Amino acid sequence: MKIKELAHLIEGLVEGSGDIDINGLSGIEKAKLGDLTFAIDETKLAEAEHSNASCVLTNKTIRKSSKTLIRVTNPKLSFLIIYNTFNTPKDRESFIHPMATVSDSVNMGKNVWIGSSVSIEEGVKIGDRVIIESNSSIKKNCEIDSFCHIYPNVTLYENTKLQKNVTLHSGVVIGSDGFGYVKDKDKIYKFPQLGRVIVENNVEIGSNTTIDRGSLSDTVIGAGTKIDNLCQIAHNVKMGKNCLIAAQCGISGSTTLGDNVTMGGQSGIADNLTIGDNVIIAAKTGVIGNLKSGATVLGFPARPIAQAKRQMAILARLSKDSRKRD
Amino acid sequence: MKIKELAHLIEGLVEGSGDIDINGLSGIEKAKLGDLTFAIDETKLAEAEHSNASCVLTNKTIRKSSKTLIRVTNPKLSFLIIYNTFNTPKDRESFIHPMATVSDSVNMGKNVWIGSSVSIEEGVKIGDRVIIESNSSIKKNCEIDSFCHIYPNVTLYENTKLQKNVTLHSGVVIGSDGFGYVKDKDKIYKFPQLGRVIVENNVEIGSNTTIDRGSLSDTVIGAGTKIDNLCQIAHNVKMGKNCLIAAQCGISGSTTLGDNVTMGGQSGIADNLTIGDNVIIAAKTGVIGNLKSGATVLGFPARPIAQAKRQMAILARLSKDSRKRD
Amino acid sequence: MKIKELAHLIEGLVEGSGDIDINGLSGIEKAKLGDLTFAIDETKLAEAEHSNASCVLTNKTIRKSSKTLIRVTNPKLSFLIIYNTFNTPKDRESFIHPMATVSDSVNMGKNVWIGSSVSIEEGVKIGDRVIIESNSSIKKNCEIDSFCHIYPNVTLYENTKLQKNVTLHSGVVIGSDGFGYVKDKDKIYKFPQLGRVIVENNVEIGSNTTIDRGSLSDTVIGAGTKIDNLCQIAHNVKMGKNCLIAAQCGISGSTTLGDNVTMGGQSGIADNLTIGDNVIIAAKTGVIGNLKSGATVLGFPARPIAQAKRQMAILARLSKDSRKRD
Repeated sequence: MKIKELAHLIEGLVEGSGDIDINGLSGIEKAKLGDLTFAIDETKLAEAEHSNASCVLTNKTIRKSSKTLIRVTNPKLSFLIIYNTFNTPKDRESFIHPMATVSDSVNMGKNVWIGSSVSIEEGVKIGDRVIIESNSSIKKNCEIDSFCHIYPNVTLYENTKLQKNVTLHSGVVIGSDGFGYVKDKDKIYKFPQLGRVIVENNVEIGSNTTIDRGSLSDTVIGAGTKIDNLCQIAHNVKMGKNCLIAAQCGISGSTTLGDNVTMGGQSGIADNLTIGDNVIIAAKTGVIGNLKSGATVLGFPARPIAQAKRQMAILARLSKDSRKRD
Repeated sequence: MKIKELAHLIEGLVEGSGDIDINGLSGIEKAKLGDLTFAIDETKLAEAEHSNASCVLTNKTIRKSSKTLIRVTNPKLSFLIIYNTFNTPKDRESFIHPMATVSDSVNMGKNVWIGSSVSIEEGVKIGDRVIIESNSSIKKNCEIDSFCHIYPNVTLYENTKLQKNVTLHSGVVIGSDGFGYVKDKDKIYKFPQLGRVIVENNVEIGSNTTIDRGSLSDTVIGAGTKIDNLCQIAHNVKMGKNCLIAAQCGISGSTTLGDNVTMGGQSGIADNLTIGDNVIIAAKTGVIGNLKSGATVLGFPARPIAQAKRQMAILARLSKDSRKRD
Repeated sequence: MKIKELAHLIEGLVEGSGDIDINGLSGIEKAKLGDLTFAIDETKLAEAEHSNASCVLTNKTIRKSSKTLIRVTNPKLSFLIIYNTFNTPKDRESFIHPMATVSDSVNMGKNVWIGSSVSIEEGVKIGDRVIIESNSSIKKNCEIDSFCHIYPNVTLYENTKLQKNVTLHSGVVIGSDGFGYVKDKDKIYKFPQLGRVIVENNVEIGSNTTIDRGSLSDTVIGAGTKIDNLCQIAHNVKMGKNCLIAAQCGISGSTTLGDNVTMGGQSGIADNLTIGDNVIIAAKTGVIGNLKSGATVLGFPARPIAQAKRQMAILARLSKDSRKRD
């Protein structure tokens, strides 16, 4: 495809020769002659100019270049639009591996692909075009709606419900018992963990993340939410739509998150809290109180980011002053 | 069963009509007519009154209600006592899945249930009524005593010893090599990791938690201790009885914990320390020194909770003062 | 073997009778008559003297003892050299379990051992003396060079490349999609994750650790690096040689680490940073800026360790003063 044709696809402006043929997409590091790459800032543009790429997607304000540019509002987004245009996921043929163990009572959709040593117990419902890869275990009465993709070594406990187009990466555990105990006179009793986990449409969950079933209500992951690797979502959590939860975050029991909440890596939220919409929680932060919609917080305990930074600055200054005095 | 009969079971006081029939137990959120639920405070009682529940378990000091109440000392505990009275775990019949791989040398108890694609290597001893679910791997010479329940995708390394009634959730790894290396002249040598992990009676371990084998001694998890998801217990750790370890905690090598230690989520303890009985470690805390029995600590480095809070308050005040001056 | 012969092996100096026979090696805690143990300091030497050990490896400056000593520069290192001398790993015979699923197109080396329910997809290359244990899943076109050991329940995504003598403990996931999304007008688009993970020679990776594939370039783990349990290595990270990464650490996307970097437990590094050689990052630290070679940092945000400790001390002093005033 020619550069000018690609530019047309993403409503971009060509600067340089639009008639060169593009044969592939790549990052700057691996770009070959005939490749399209992208550069989000001047530094990246300089790197792209030193590569063999034939064309660079970039933004509208960046300087001119010796390479042919396509200028767009969001180069990264335009890059992925082009990528998706030429890379539609291939349909897998209907397939059940002879070494999978699938209960007779499973309700199976069309074009389902099931790998070796997968275990699917009684009463499970599986929608169309679902992929369940090797060594995954699906316990009783789970519902897995169409277009879900379950990678190897995943476990779903009984009654887990995945809506459409949910992706679970390897090692994910959904629906295990929550950490609910009652102490009485030096004895620890286990509180019943009877709820489900409901994962709504278009959620993606990273490797080795764990999501506990509700105790008496359900745990809910809202549509479009993306959760990174090694996160812990405790029982009864209700997470809103389109949240972005980075790696190694933890959300404690019965806490509710609004829509579009962002959590930086290794941050955590205490139990029984209410977090509003569009809240941003910085990496490593520990939230121990409710947060209103739109809040941006940092530190432990979490406080408004400006305040947290001011406190860090004050401490640094005091320390410097004291050092001079010593 | 009638309300007054349930009240008798838990030594509770009925307020309202005790002759109504109760058909089920549920959380407030899902309560139907005929259900018993529980409320631990006024807010929850108000929610329960808006539900269809026919009876509310609550404490002795709470206000009167339009619903029939049963007053007890600990409503949550009484709720689970009633639950356990009517929900005794069903016995599974003895079963070994034809696609499990069980060594001939395994010493097998009565009524053992083994799922598909489970691997059990030579010399393993399995007690009565043990359940090992699909895709779990039990390496050589492990001992699994009666009533243990191993969920799918669990790994036990060789020589791991589980005492009675231990529950391991999916993705748990017990007995992997500890992180023990010796550096010498830019070379890193692996130190031998030869010890075992011993998990005592009635321990429950959450999904994807990892417990390393001892290097030259053993790693020990004391009876009744409960560990949440995604925790890391390093080699040679000795943990006491009835500890409660929340999600994503880490305990470094050769550290000893007393009985009844509580760790909040994402907290950590450095290596070679001694932590006394009844210590409480707040969420996100980092412990880098020994702690005496009864200590309650917070922050990094961990310090007595009152002191940590005072320091946080001072910093907040200084920051405010400086802002006024600016 | 006699004590004097062992001493010769490690160039140690015998103090006491060198003619006693040594039958085994053990830690102090489990030492029996005829055992050699080691003591790195006076406290440990006292413990060793109370054990039944027949000989104690120790350093050159420690006090004399009633036990026969062998004095060396690094007792722990000498202990493992003796251990390795008498414990060469046994060769496993070539074996493919009948319940493993191995694609016909797999290129298989000599003396490979493959356990039950292992899945190996098309185009995988496996070198000599590789061990892949039960319930592990190896996706398309992975390359696993000789002497690699993959424990149970591991997942390798497509195109993952392990160089020689790599050890992956149970539950490790390598090559899963990175957390790469582009937000545009309340929609979240997934950015293509097309790179590989390359794990160089002699790397060991702990249980349930996750390493994401590169998005457009590759993720690289340098030769000799050791990563503990439950760590998260994000897409495009380039890690140098001989790094030591303790448990529950996280390294965010596109960050580069030099050689010999040490990270303490539960520490984290933000994305797109450059960390020099020989950097030491203390436990729980959060790095949010580049670090020059040789830096030692602590706290959040990470700062030079002396500065961080001074700030902690200042805050403690201010808090004490304020308490006196109150």
